[in-house]
Amino acid sequence: MAELPLAPVKRIIKLSGAERVSEDAVESLRDAIEEFAEDLAASARAYARHAGRKTVKKEDVKAAR
Amino acid sequence: MAELPLAPVKRIIKLSGAERVSEDAVESLRDAIEEFAEDLAASARAYARHAGRKTVKKEDVKAAR
Repeated sequence: MAELPLAPVKRIIKLSGAERVSEDAVESLRDAIEEFAEDLAASARAYARHAGRKTVKKEDVKAAR
Repeated sequence: MAELPLAPVKRIIKLSGAERVSEDAVESLRDAIEEFAEDLAASARAYARHAGRKTVKKEDVKAAR
């Protein structure tokens, strides 16, 4: 966990139109999207393996979405 | 779009067990999680506004999840 940096996550919240955002809200959103990313990555990897490849390709991410 | 850096996204894919990952797969996953983050941020902001606040708090992100 906690691969993604907080600064860009805070920018995404600000870009949504929020005037202010608490630090623990930024951390909570970071955790949520990290979890989503992990699930999607695991699914993409499964698609790559199913296709007999060791390389995860764009088509695997597309299939996983 | 494209607030999130690619390097941590690539690490998340590698941590899922992928031996190799193409660059466009990393970009595709980054786009997917950025879209997810934007949707979640917009929903959290709506919850904050509904509660009469200008500050997005952790409880808003929790409600949005």
